[in-house]
Amino acid sequence: MTRDAEFSSLGPGGEFDRIRAIWRRLGTAGGVGDDCAVVTLNGARLAFSTDLSVQDVHFRTGWLAPLEIGWRSAAAALSDLAAVAAQPRGILVSLGVPADWPGMLVAELMEGAAGAARQVGAEVWGGDLVRANRVLLDVAVVGELAGDPVWRRGAAPGDALWVTGELGGPNAALQAWQRGTEPDARARERFARPMPRIAEAAWLRDHGARAMIDLSDGLVADASHLAAASSVRCAIRAEEVPRHPAAGRMDPLEGGEEYELLVALPAAFDAAADFTRQFGLPLTRVGAMEQGAGVLVTEEGQVVEVGRVYRHF
Amino acid sequence: MTRDAEFSSLGPGGEFDRIRAIWRRLGTAGGVGDDCAVVTLNGARLAFSTDLSVQDVHFRTGWLAPLEIGWRSAAAALSDLAAVAAQPRGILVSLGVPADWPGMLVAELMEGAAGAARQVGAEVWGGDLVRANRVLLDVAVVGELAGDPVWRRGAAPGDALWVTGELGGPNAALQAWQRGTEPDARARERFARPMPRIAEAAWLRDHGARAMIDLSDGLVADASHLAAASSVRCAIRAEEVPRHPAAGRMDPLEGGEEYELLVALPAAFDAAADFTRQFGLPLTRVGAMEQGAGVLVTEEGQVVEVGRVYRHF
Repeated sequence: MTRDAEFSSLGPGGEFDRIRAIWRRLGTAGGVGDDCAVVTLNGARLAFSTDLSVQDVHFRTGWLAPLEIGWRSAAAALSDLAAVAAQPRGILVSLGVPADWPGMLVAELMEGAAGAARQVGAEVWGGDLVRANRVLLDVAVVGELAGDPVWRRGAAPGDALWVTGELGGPNAALQAWQRGTEPDARARERFARPMPRIAEAAWLRDHGARAMIDLSDGLVADASHLAAASSVRCAIRAEEVPRHPAAGRMDPLEGGEEYELLVALPAAFDAAADFTRQFGLPLTRVGAMEQGAGVLVTEEGQVVEVGRVYRHF
Repeated sequence: MTRDAEFSSLGPGGEFDRIRAIWRRLGTAGGVGDDCAVVTLNGARLAFSTDLSVQDVHFRTGWLAPLEIGWRSAAAALSDLAAVAAQPRGILVSLGVPADWPGMLVAELMEGAAGAARQVGAEVWGGDLVRANRVLLDVAVVGELAGDPVWRRGAAPGDALWVTGELGGPNAALQAWQRGTEPDARARERFARPMPRIAEAAWLRDHGARAMIDLSDGLVADASHLAAASSVRCAIRAEEVPRHPAAGRMDPLEGGEEYELLVALPAAFDAAADFTRQFGLPLTRVGAMEQGAGVLVTEEGQVVEVGRVYRHF
């Protein structure tokens, strides 16, 4: 939540800084800029997050079926729990739909959100349903922490930087839709039904993860958040970044909506093969943490200019 | 949450029933149709709810200042916790605002929501901020239960029916705005800055409350929810209903957005004066629970036709 990419869409300069400053002052239960609030209530250590998706900002109804819109919105929120290695327990789904939407489609939105929750062991606890002129879903998620949360701020120079899965599929799908063509089916699936990496996050925590973030804004943008929170530089070797088969050249670096995990692990970590055996998912070393600030992307030793930070369309 | 008045705006008959059936099947952590989900996590008994407010459905930006819009949205969600006698601990605020909204106004929305939370001992734990073509706020609330929750379903024939505060102010304000006139200042305040009755709810629980609901849809509409959940009839004497000084004849019966509490208490309850001394707020006996179903409103012994259930404009 409170993504920089989204804040920056509200306006440049002083106003943007003012909003961020106020948000940070109000929201004090997580690390600054972290994905989740972590709170102890009656001895239970809980993680909370919320993710708002709005038609024509985060999705278009012509691109996705209602079931997929519901799934995707819930998965985006659940992914915030993965980022701190919390186990999802329940979700609340607030829906806004136009008055002329058939009830069947509203039911499908809900079923989609419930499906994403069930997939990771969570239940739908409730929600709200109101009229709105566009479809919107806000999903609040509640998770339990078995151990300490993994924050964005724990990385140190010398740590290795790893990423789960293959990147670039969702952006390839988005770009196809925006060109007016039908996306590659595998890329479309990555956009429409992302899988929050909940069990994978717990495994990474148990294998020494020092800092972690989920890739909602894109590899380079989210690496910059990790770098800022940990006061380090993320050095990424573009040639190592695992590419989705349908991805264009810059999609894996710049494309958002991945919901894979970017994680800093001790340099000595060498259990990636175990991870892949357990989850059927690549875990790939893409760089390292260094002294400094920001993100440095190289390809075969040459600096790569990363043109844009991912923005919702 | 999941208010009948809002569901019914989505369409009549089969579709409406289908949505309700699915919602109820998905949302299993509260009583059917109850305001909150109540869940035990690691031994902590917690209540969750969420309330979505959309510009031009729940408020108009010309009527309220951003600070008031934020306050009102958070208060509406917090009032769901009052309905089960939970103590608010934290809120998550998801905001959608047009791209051209000044950051200052966004900050005021947040400050308003934070103010309503602080007023009842809760903190802002986080949220989300995205672009949208209209202003919208979804507030998820988390509360702790000191004892058993008070459900809608616990009333029995013979119980007395009581209401906190004075009714009709918010509807009087709404009607003035809709006529294009400026509302009475006291009525306006009731609409713009409702006070969730948190401490009052705990007091009522401790004094034997058997069933309770917050008045978001209006006295008669919410009494019908209480009646349905408890399988009783609510008999209301209109002449006893405490009227806000600015309220028109039917406002106290039909007007929504009150956020007062309607509570079934044992017939022998006689501590209303203590309640008023403690909270500076009337607690008024307005009727009784009877064998039967639905709501019967009488005035000086004559049956009163209540023309409409409160709908968001």
